[in-house]
Amino acid sequence: MTLRLRALIDALGGELHGDADRVIAGLAPLERASATELSFLADEKLAPLLATSQAGCVIVGPQLAQAAAQRDCIVAPDPLLYFARVTQLFRRVRGDGPQPGIHPSAVVEEGAHIDASASIGALCFVGRNARIGAHTILMPRVTLGHDCVLGARCIIHSGAVIGADGFGFAPNDGAWEKIEQFGAVRIGDDVQIGANTCVDRGALDDTVIEDGVKLDNLIQIGHNCHVGKHTAMAGCVGVAGSANIGAYCTVSGAGMIAGHITICDHVHVMPATMITHSVTKPGRYSGYFPVDEYDVWEKNAATLRHLYRLRERVRRLERALNAKSDDSAE
Amino acid sequence: MTLRLRALIDALGGELHGDADRVIAGLAPLERASATELSFLADEKLAPLLATSQAGCVIVGPQLAQAAAQRDCIVAPDPLLYFARVTQLFRRVRGDGPQPGIHPSAVVEEGAHIDASASIGALCFVGRNARIGAHTILMPRVTLGHDCVLGARCIIHSGAVIGADGFGFAPNDGAWEKIEQFGAVRIGDDVQIGANTCVDRGALDDTVIEDGVKLDNLIQIGHNCHVGKHTAMAGCVGVAGSANIGAYCTVSGAGMIAGHITICDHVHVMPATMITHSVTKPGRYSGYFPVDEYDVWEKNAATLRHLYRLRERVRRLERALNAKSDDSAE
Amino acid sequence: MTLRLRALIDALGGELHGDADRVIAGLAPLERASATELSFLADEKLAPLLATSQAGCVIVGPQLAQAAAQRDCIVAPDPLLYFARVTQLFRRVRGDGPQPGIHPSAVVEEGAHIDASASIGALCFVGRNARIGAHTILMPRVTLGHDCVLGARCIIHSGAVIGADGFGFAPNDGAWEKIEQFGAVRIGDDVQIGANTCVDRGALDDTVIEDGVKLDNLIQIGHNCHVGKHTAMAGCVGVAGSANIGAYCTVSGAGMIAGHITICDHVHVMPATMITHSVTKPGRYSGYFPVDEYDVWEKNAATLRHLYRLRERVRRLERALNAKSDDSAE
Repeated sequence: MTLRLRALIDALGGELHGDADRVIAGLAPLERASATELSFLADEKLAPLLATSQAGCVIVGPQLAQAAAQRDCIVAPDPLLYFARVTQLFRRVRGDGPQPGIHPSAVVEEGAHIDASASIGALCFVGRNARIGAHTILMPRVTLGHDCVLGARCIIHSGAVIGADGFGFAPNDGAWEKIEQFGAVRIGDDVQIGANTCVDRGALDDTVIEDGVKLDNLIQIGHNCHVGKHTAMAGCVGVAGSANIGAYCTVSGAGMIAGHITICDHVHVMPATMITHSVTKPGRYSGYFPVDEYDVWEKNAATLRHLYRLRERVRRLERALNAKSDDSAE
Repeated sequence: MTLRLRALIDALGGELHGDADRVIAGLAPLERASATELSFLADEKLAPLLATSQAGCVIVGPQLAQAAAQRDCIVAPDPLLYFARVTQLFRRVRGDGPQPGIHPSAVVEEGAHIDASASIGALCFVGRNARIGAHTILMPRVTLGHDCVLGARCIIHSGAVIGADGFGFAPNDGAWEKIEQFGAVRIGDDVQIGANTCVDRGALDDTVIEDGVKLDNLIQIGHNCHVGKHTAMAGCVGVAGSANIGAYCTVSGAGMIAGHITICDHVHVMPATMITHSVTKPGRYSGYFPVDEYDVWEKNAATLRHLYRLRERVRRLERALNAKSDDSAE
Repeated sequence: MTLRLRALIDALGGELHGDADRVIAGLAPLERASATELSFLADEKLAPLLATSQAGCVIVGPQLAQAAAQRDCIVAPDPLLYFARVTQLFRRVRGDGPQPGIHPSAVVEEGAHIDASASIGALCFVGRNARIGAHTILMPRVTLGHDCVLGARCIIHSGAVIGADGFGFAPNDGAWEKIEQFGAVRIGDDVQIGANTCVDRGALDDTVIEDGVKLDNLIQIGHNCHVGKHTAMAGCVGVAGSANIGAYCTVSGAGMIAGHITICDHVHVMPATMITHSVTKPGRYSGYFPVDEYDVWEKNAATLRHLYRLRERVRRLERALNAKSDDSAE
């Protein structure tokens, strides 16, 4: 498959500096792109690579239009966004993405409604009365439980489990009595769910994932959570039951959100950080132990285990010194 | 499906205040329950909701019997436990749970013994000589490895892998030589295993999960672990190999248990906490960095990296001040 | 299946002290091995067990040859390594491992090339143009995405997903625009990948796992990562995109590696530790909050949230005391 630069510009806009008839056969990073490959430069710090790259054409921002001028380039206000659209165009032109239809090895229970434009991969399970919207893709080996709903243009990666039972039990004299989970999972449009990620069904109400949410791999979303639109979570994140997370949030890798709390919009959780209380102020939140060489960490960790006593000692010193000051004032 | 309150009381006990002929069609939270729905109130702080709820009937504890008296209510010593049993009754009456039998898309190897009342979901794999007890449910896409044993009334959620090889290798001049894993996994009765959770088979002995254990999603249980009865673990927990965990313990989300240690009964591990040593005293254990706004965390984390030096400085101050005190005492 | 000790020595070397005709029917730990079972002793601290063990034969190191002399034993320079090879021999002799061939329930897309000696388990998915080397084993329910490559003698455990899309998006006015992932995953020889572990495909270049790497269960490897040969990672580890991890490293359980950083060879990451920056010096690195009883932790954590202020107070004390010292020097 090849494209001329002209076709790219026609489809996606941007300002071409160079030969509209140049043939592009693929995409590659600046360092290894050849004369038939298109690349991009989103980070100005990497601008020196422009001088040595063999790329046939480079997507750059306006501030680098000059620097890139000695070669074919496409100037776009946001080169990374433009590049993202180029990758989507290439996928469409190649036509090698999942095709509409239900793979014969998939198991679809009765009452499930799957849009004709959706793609259900091999060895998927779709439970009774589940609904799948237009152009949504289930990669192979996905579980969508009964009564769960997926919007349009979603991508669900292999191994994801949507609609397992929420973790609900009543304590009973040391043992646990199961609370049957009668809610479902409702997922909006343009949601991506990563490989082996789990979104549990609600107890009585539904678990809700709003439009445009992106979840990476191996994420746990507990029952009755609500994740606001366009929030993104990186791999290994855990969200306990009934957490209410706002829109436009990000949770970095291995971030953890406690249950029954509310996170407002535009909150950004740093990696390996445990959010234990509701957050009402947008911004960045962090809480992980800074890594160090083992011996250094060991000494600091040992001291940390007596930190409040250290504070007491400082307090006593302050009092003693003040007393002395008083003494000398006499 | 509908039930009269009379049928509920007949099946589950409890003291009915109100109309035994009232028809209940479903369950709902107090806030949105309608006149044909049953709700419950387990948290006394939410008692004010009783005044405004439209619920047809509410399950309450004895101390709220008075407050709830102006409406139909069921008084039970433990409303949450009663409600759990109501959900189970509804599931049975609806009859919409997994049915006994082996789904035709499941793969069952020779020598496996599956009780006739068990339910093996679509696209499951059951290895040779595995055994599955009465009324146990494998949801779709579960792996139960060869020779592994599941007791009665277990529920194994989609994507769970029971009986993958333990992670056992002998170091060999920088590389790793595999130690074949000849043990299996033995799981008791009334165990629930969450979606995409893994329980590895033992090296020589078996990995053992006792009766009544509840494991949430995306949990890792290493080889040769022993998990005592009625212990519950929340999502994203990891237990390294040969850990011996007592009965009636809880591990909150993302808690981690080191290998080759012993945790006594009635230990409660807080979230995101790493247990590195054996625990011999029941109680709550915690160890995670408290979250804060990023800038605050950054300053504290930077100081933490020199904490033991700060302790030295305090020690020197104490010595200096004592010396001074001694001076002035002269 | 039984073996005489002679056959073991013939196959694996080692120095036999005792009866070469002794029949061995199985392997067991020292504590419960019977007269027809072989055991091993790799940890000298457990040497007292030699006196009471009923094992028919014990593998020991040279320094314990004397102590073990009253019974049949095999002396080998590294008893654990020798034992590992014994387990492999037993597996081969028993012949109960996965057999070559493609299970009829597996789905293999066109263009995939699977070596005739490889074993593709039940309900696996192998995408178009994927390649699988000699003697490699896919346990049941594995996903190998299109164009991904697995070397020889790999073992991929159930639920693993190799080649899901990397988590790549361009921000677009608060929303996220997908960057199609055109790279693949290339995995070397002798690699083991645990149950429900995910290795994402690269964006433009491939994600690469070198020879001999061992990944435990529920690990996330982001797109465009490079993991050097013989590096081992325990369960629940997360590696963000474009991390470059050296050879001969280990990452303990729940260790986390940030994206776009480089870790040199021979780095050992302690459990639950977040590596945020490149590491250029071999050694052990740690960073987790030491666990404590809840009340103790709570007081220390509360103090930690004001740690940099405590440092300020110490600084002021030092100044005040110095000033006093200057005073008294007058």
